[in-house]
Amino acid sequence: MIKAIAVDVDGTITDGKRRLCPSSLEAIRESEERGIPVIIVTGNILCSTKTISILLGTSGGLVAENGGVIKSSKGKYVLGDIGKCQEAYEFLEARYPVRKVEYSEQRVSEIALERDIEVEILKESLKNFDVRLYDSGFAIHITDPSVNKGSSLIRLARDFGVERQEIMAVGDSENDLEFLEVAGLKVAVANADQELKSLADYVTKKPYGDGVKEALERFLP
Amino acid sequence: MIKAIAVDVDGTITDGKRRLCPSSLEAIRESEERGIPVIIVTGNILCSTKTISILLGTSGGLVAENGGVIKSSKGKYVLGDIGKCQEAYEFLEARYPVRKVEYSEQRVSEIALERDIEVEILKESLKNFDVRLYDSGFAIHITDPSVNKGSSLIRLARDFGVERQEIMAVGDSENDLEFLEVAGLKVAVANADQELKSLADYVTKKPYGDGVKEALERFLP
Repeated sequence: MIKAIAVDVDGTITDGKRRLCPSSLEAIRESEERGIPVIIVTGNILCSTKTISILLGTSGGLVAENGGVIKSSKGKYVLGDIGKCQEAYEFLEARYPVRKVEYSEQRVSEIALERDIEVEILKESLKNFDVRLYDSGFAIHITDPSVNKGSSLIRLARDFGVERQEIMAVGDSENDLEFLEVAGLKVAVANADQELKSLADYVTKKPYGDGVKEALERFLP
Repeated sequence: MIKAIAVDVDGTITDGKRRLCPSSLEAIRESEERGIPVIIVTGNILCSTKTISILLGTSGGLVAENGGVIKSSKGKYVLGDIGKCQEAYEFLEARYPVRKVEYSEQRVSEIALERDIEVEILKESLKNFDVRLYDSGFAIHITDPSVNKGSSLIRLARDFGVERQEIMAVGDSENDLEFLEVAGLKVAVANADQELKSLADYVTKKPYGDGVKEALERFLP
């Protein structure tokens, strides 16, 4: 029995240009109206995540910065250690022309870079650091490996009294792997990375927001 | 000839609960696709405003904090003096149980309060201060009177090479008065304050986002 829907933002409820898909807005609104709260799970900073939640009208809480920050019914928690990420960033900065994304001063648990350099090069370069790198397709995230979207979703759901088996998770990219792994029902949209599709219980026929709508129509009670 | 659309956010493209109306999303997307850029003009902080712009897919620039901050093709400018607002806030704080809204630490040109107290009481209390108070229906804003949504829209439009006479402005509340005043075509949505309706060239039959869609369908070339 699905009691909550957790959705990634960029490339899942939005198109490839980060624009909200009308179909996902419609599906999310309907889910909320039917009493099934929607949880936003994203690499965005908390301020953006909150704004997205207000516009969509979601009530299931927020997982921001790839799990580094959550906002549940009980409050806001910073779970990722940006210190580890800062060390790794300084190492990269001395070697590559890396650039932080806009509003980086508001990022409190991880560091996000513009996608100027292949993530594999950066991963190789940082192999001795205690960090994990993701390419979300929109930014490269240097994160604390002790938190991810999945571990933080479990923590958030606990505050709301929802079991992870009762959550449907929908995502599209590499940084959604742990996120889908912890959920009872794992959905990848048609435009998702192959690795995520392999893990999913269901791969939608349609991409982006149309895929989100397809999944909600198929699986909502 | 309308060359740009400027829209307020809360209560204009959203419903009374700040949730984005699917109709306004559709209308804004179509305007952009037809080459008529949409400008976001709001009392929200810049980070939220930017997020709204990304989700909507607008390209016309941003007026945030009721004109106190703009982001144009030429960069980001803080135009309002928060010092004046801070003085007024300290005066109020000593007399009334006022509370700043969430994310106030990110507000750089004005101060926004929860609507716990009648705005008229606060206005009377601050009559000797060089500030202007607005009740947007979502928050009470203490602002620098030398900037407003209208003056900042003109400044923004100049950077984009658009004349104010070429702009259609759509709003709903008291803090949209100067904003509509400077525009070539002034539209108030059906749920707007009476004073704003009196000033408008056109009052939509429908409220909120449906009104925005109605206006764009009626007036877009």
